[in-house]
Amino acid sequence: MRNALIAAVALSTGMLPSAVALADEGQWQPYQMPSIADKLSERGIDIPAKQLADLTSYPMNAVVGLGYCTASFVSPQGLVVTNHHCAYRAIQYNSKKEHNYLADGFLATSKDKEPSAGPNERLYITEAVTDVSAQVKKDIGDDPLKRYENIQANRKALIKECESDDNYRCSVRSFHSGLEYYLIKQLIIRDVRLVYAPPESAGAFGGDIDNYEYPRHSADFTFLRAYVGKDGKPAAYAEDNVPYVPKSYLKVNADGVKAGDGVFVAGYPGSTSRYRLTSELKFASDWLYPTLAKRYQLRIDTIEAMSANDKDVKIKYAGTLAGMANRMKKYNGLLDGFKATDIIGIKQSREDEFLAWLAKDAEYKSFQGQFAALEDLLVEQRQQRQGRYYFENAQSSDLLAAANKLYRLAKEKQKPDAKREEGYQQRDMKMFKARLKRLDSSFAISVDKTLWMQDLEAYLAQDNRVAELDAILNEGDSEVSLSEKLDALYALSSLTDKQKRLAWMDADAEAFETSADPFIRLAVALYPQNMQAEKDAKTLAGKLSKARPDYMKAIIAYNKANGWPVYPDANGTLRITYGMVDGYQSADALYKQPFTRLEGITAKHTGIEPFNAPAKLLEAIEAKRYGTHAVESVYQDPASWLCRLFSCLDKPEEFGSVPVNFLSSVDTTGGNSGSPVFNGKGELVGLNFDSTYEAITKDWFFNPTITRAVHVDIRYILWMMDEVDNAQNLIEELDLVRN
Amino acid sequence: MRNALIAAVALSTGMLPSAVALADEGQWQPYQMPSIADKLSERGIDIPAKQLADLTSYPMNAVVGLGYCTASFVSPQGLVVTNHHCAYRAIQYNSKKEHNYLADGFLATSKDKEPSAGPNERLYITEAVTDVSAQVKKDIGDDPLKRYENIQANRKALIKECESDDNYRCSVRSFHSGLEYYLIKQLIIRDVRLVYAPPESAGAFGGDIDNYEYPRHSADFTFLRAYVGKDGKPAAYAEDNVPYVPKSYLKVNADGVKAGDGVFVAGYPGSTSRYRLTSELKFASDWLYPTLAKRYQLRIDTIEAMSANDKDVKIKYAGTLAGMANRMKKYNGLLDGFKATDIIGIKQSREDEFLAWLAKDAEYKSFQGQFAALEDLLVEQRQQRQGRYYFENAQSSDLLAAANKLYRLAKEKQKPDAKREEGYQQRDMKMFKARLKRLDSSFAISVDKTLWMQDLEAYLAQDNRVAELDAILNEGDSEVSLSEKLDALYALSSLTDKQKRLAWMDADAEAFETSADPFIRLAVALYPQNMQAEKDAKTLAGKLSKARPDYMKAIIAYNKANGWPVYPDANGTLRITYGMVDGYQSADALYKQPFTRLEGITAKHTGIEPFNAPAKLLEAIEAKRYGTHAVESVYQDPASWLCRLFSCLDKPEEFGSVPVNFLSSVDTTGGNSGSPVFNGKGELVGLNFDSTYEAITKDWFFNPTITRAVHVDIRYILWMMDEVDNAQNLIEELDLVRN
Repeated sequence: MRNALIAAVALSTGMLPSAVALADEGQWQPYQMPSIADKLSERGIDIPAKQLADLTSYPMNAVVGLGYCTASFVSPQGLVVTNHHCAYRAIQYNSKKEHNYLADGFLATSKDKEPSAGPNERLYITEAVTDVSAQVKKDIGDDPLKRYENIQANRKALIKECESDDNYRCSVRSFHSGLEYYLIKQLIIRDVRLVYAPPESAGAFGGDIDNYEYPRHSADFTFLRAYVGKDGKPAAYAEDNVPYVPKSYLKVNADGVKAGDGVFVAGYPGSTSRYRLTSELKFASDWLYPTLAKRYQLRIDTIEAMSANDKDVKIKYAGTLAGMANRMKKYNGLLDGFKATDIIGIKQSREDEFLAWLAKDAEYKSFQGQFAALEDLLVEQRQQRQGRYYFENAQSSDLLAAANKLYRLAKEKQKPDAKREEGYQQRDMKMFKARLKRLDSSFAISVDKTLWMQDLEAYLAQDNRVAELDAILNEGDSEVSLSEKLDALYALSSLTDKQKRLAWMDADAEAFETSADPFIRLAVALYPQNMQAEKDAKTLAGKLSKARPDYMKAIIAYNKANGWPVYPDANGTLRITYGMVDGYQSADALYKQPFTRLEGITAKHTGIEPFNAPAKLLEAIEAKRYGTHAVESVYQDPASWLCRLFSCLDKPEEFGSVPVNFLSSVDTTGGNSGSPVFNGKGELVGLNFDSTYEAITKDWFFNPTITRAVHVDIRYILWMMDEVDNAQNLIEELDLVRN
Repeated sequence: MRNALIAAVALSTGMLPSAVALADEGQWQPYQMPSIADKLSERGIDIPAKQLADLTSYPMNAVVGLGYCTASFVSPQGLVVTNHHCAYRAIQYNSKKEHNYLADGFLATSKDKEPSAGPNERLYITEAVTDVSAQVKKDIGDDPLKRYENIQANRKALIKECESDDNYRCSVRSFHSGLEYYLIKQLIIRDVRLVYAPPESAGAFGGDIDNYEYPRHSADFTFLRAYVGKDGKPAAYAEDNVPYVPKSYLKVNADGVKAGDGVFVAGYPGSTSRYRLTSELKFASDWLYPTLAKRYQLRIDTIEAMSANDKDVKIKYAGTLAGMANRMKKYNGLLDGFKATDIIGIKQSREDEFLAWLAKDAEYKSFQGQFAALEDLLVEQRQQRQGRYYFENAQSSDLLAAANKLYRLAKEKQKPDAKREEGYQQRDMKMFKARLKRLDSSFAISVDKTLWMQDLEAYLAQDNRVAELDAILNEGDSEVSLSEKLDALYALSSLTDKQKRLAWMDADAEAFETSADPFIRLAVALYPQNMQAEKDAKTLAGKLSKARPDYMKAIIAYNKANGWPVYPDANGTLRITYGMVDGYQSADALYKQPFTRLEGITAKHTGIEPFNAPAKLLEAIEAKRYGTHAVESVYQDPASWLCRLFSCLDKPEEFGSVPVNFLSSVDTTGGNSGSPVFNGKGELVGLNFDSTYEAITKDWFFNPTITRAVHVDIRYILWMMDEVDNAQNLIEELDLVRN
């Protein structure tokens, strides 16, 4: 009751009384949950923390990885739910001229109608997470480069051993910047099928325009199904494979959540930089992001201009452009966020407090010098980064990148497989080939050349030059323009031919070194410089592999001294984050409420992409065909006590619709897409799919007052199944519960 | 207390419980205030309704007209406060190369430093409003055209008599579409001086982008002073004039208002269409606005394209473009509003209810036939409007418009002054000449021709043609393009020459009829058609001058039968509207809170116009130099009772800044700019300056849930005076009170 009032009043004013200002920061390793049990219970999360720590029991063993996304089992027959945007490739793979599932959506009314999601779709079920810190750090020595190489060798050995069973994918991930290493063992489901997807116009309603925005009205969900061989073991697609029986599957709570409710999210967040030093943030804020944003904007403008009158270019670069637009919005969000909140100042004062503690702490006093040493290494890192920036960009041609990789492959192949660089081992060859093949679908000489020339001009306009590159650019007639020279390179290269490009995968180094292909020649010429840069980077990484863990050790000790548990930065491994369903103050006098409703779709609908909701959906809304999924209020029964006491309202607040998307204060990042959102009992109440624009800076700093994740409400999913798409067969599969 | 809770909870959820859903609709004639006394007191407006009805006492005798704006006296020495945008011309008039008051702002530190606001600035003090319905309708007969002309003659006679004293401006305004007529007698202050204006970058912070938007952060205020001759009588500017001593001046409440407080606004709203029939709204929604919007957009695009590379055109058409952008935003707001709310449906059902009552009411039963007759006239009106549309646009050239007016003047001058058409009487000549002179500053042949040709092409593409126009367009070689023909017209016209243009004011009709000037020739040729159209319109107006008042009579009776008082549509006369300080639900999950704060300016500031706040203002904010103008909360002391009872919040909501702009549910429209916003005691707490985008449809239909007016908070004005501009001399003049 107390929580309810706090929530209601906080919502009313956008204020954040200190009582509510419990930071929900933290992407916790499941094993850590017992250490934050009190915080979970403060939020009303009643499922035992110990249970969440156990990857072999409900609900964590129902949470699975899916490429760069997260998904979860929701039926005993291997039914899986994730985001529409995470299943996009699977839907696209099945879309043909005669049935466009992207445009029209898809529903398999029985299992025999479930098509393969494509030969490359995989589900990854994390079965074990083992601390291998000792093994990784064994006998690595002190020489920086050797140290780096030994760590890599130890990791590879662990992975190789773990992957002796073909059905598993293994990885060794660094936690706390190399303080700890864990071996992650994941069962691979190789036969994934498409079950149910809404039309893209609902699943991605609002499209790029609404990306990172709120209020949001997205049906960003899709159902897949995991299949295995008849023996129950993972297998490649075969018609007579059978549905996989997961160890457990999520209960689905059809009543969803209300504002103020505690929620938690499990998934595979990709990467954060929360423990980076203030100097690193400053560099990112002052140089890195503005520099990258400027180059991105130029590239976006260029591709858009070149697409305007060229349909072929438009189609080929649509995906690139969408990705760049997304990245650009992220850069702008970061820069706007740094402007709106003095994150550098906040981080600096926290760092100052830490350093003051460090200076006084008997045990860690000695780490002061190591902190200074780390700062020195970071200066070196920034110099490396800035020094290499123009030269790296000067190799931005997709064709040159392919040539670079191919020659590198020939060189790596001279070593035994285990010694080869990651990405060039036998296990990587399938992906390597696929990428080489795919190039044509997103490549046009005109665009590649124009973008490359912009980078070359920027390179030529500064002093940090590489003789080997200059030599090739200066070859031939000095009267000939750079543009004409580049034209000649493309004209004479055979790499634009897919078969010839692929054939280079089998060529030896000598073949490269004697080739007259201009891009191959460039790759060979630049190889020593590139290898030197890589060696410098590895040497620095070797140094950092000692300095960063030391720093993290002190940071963890400092936090422990203050009674604060510490979670590691995100690294693509399974994590849990908790928070509260809550709106937020988006700007002065602008408050964003935690739930959107069906009628918001109609209001946004213009009939023009990306605001072109399907007619059947609009009709159901117009007819108020809510089924059993509407709620009277998304707030905690204000009428039942606040107004009973005060008889203040003649009529309690009426939500009176089906909730579509909602906000919570959980701590997510890229990779959490498709993550199940749980209520306090551990029942599925939604799918995570985005964060708000104001929250983009959370990769560096979690600001609890404005950081909100955006979720698809389970009631919207069920309503779509019930009232729009008649997916009764699937509803029956679910383990539906009510409050 | 009860209100406070209602407000707080309503705010929290964007809901509108029926208890709060008191429509604040109504732009009331002051004399009507006693009839709504109960509503005022429900809102906490304690000043006696009778006092508000009295134009000769506080506060109404302190409210004055200013061009198309409103202003009010705030000191015994004639100090006047209004909007910055209402005083724009006065500030511009005083801006020179050596002191740009628009850019830098202006403060006269003593009265002798107050410059004239310009020879055309006027303040109008309404001294008497007299019902002259009987006089206007005396002996007007039944013949439609005669009826129209007799009404005009009666009005003119009343005005002439009233204006026998030069110090007065008089007008006869129609109320309830001609049911009643009132003679308005206003004292004219002719010596107006500039006292204090913030820089445009604060006064118009957000510029066109923020126009009609909220959250808003505008210092839209300026102080002027009224001067009179030494005899206390109005006089033209003279150095030794003295400050005017107003009959009363407003108390200024430095504590401002809070959410949920009742407020009222007095001013001169221009025009509304609340009592128009549903068929008229349909016509506006389905044909008129879309048609006008389409043409406007084309014109805006054309001028923008032609301005892009032509600095001269850019400067000349900047004002036109700004006006058109404003109008375009209004059209879009209207069309979006009609889409968002089914206003036609709502009005239709209300009309149906009225008609059902009409059918049953003994006294008004007979009006059913008259309602039908009115609908018939409205069909005729729509046909007239559509029929004339292309021909009217085909005369859109500014040069042709000038020629039309000049020839009309020559024709009107053949009649005695009293019989001449309004706009062509002796009293209009000063303005007539000024407009003719001004033409050059906003005219370029290239633009005028291009826009005109677009209209001519649209005219030629349809069938409703006028032979006289076609004849001229078809003159000469049929091989010559329309564009070349128009070029010839401009080349041969002398009207582009200011002196020659002005000389035509003294020419007689024959001079026109024998002129070879192509634009004069066009004007003469089109004159009969234009006069016929005017005659048709007047005849229709004559018919409507009977039908509309009959309809309004029935409407008023219907409302009376339901116990609803009726206010007339806005018509530029002094009105009072009341409401509550309140936020609103702007879109699904998007709630706009009622107050903005100083820090919102810093957040919006980009350094690029129109978001380029003055440095001294930003510095004061940065330093939190709030003076005595910050408030802890803008809500009604939630801590003091809600949280005292529940001890729910460790810390009550902190506004902790100076309120900048605020919202209320008062019922305003264009003309209310600069209007004083009063608290319940009749003390000044802000200045009205805009409405929200969602409220644009209020000219047709007042929707209490989303209609909000935007006000400058008095605390922001006082803060600027105190902490930014050091205007102590003015603060001392004010009658400052606190709660």
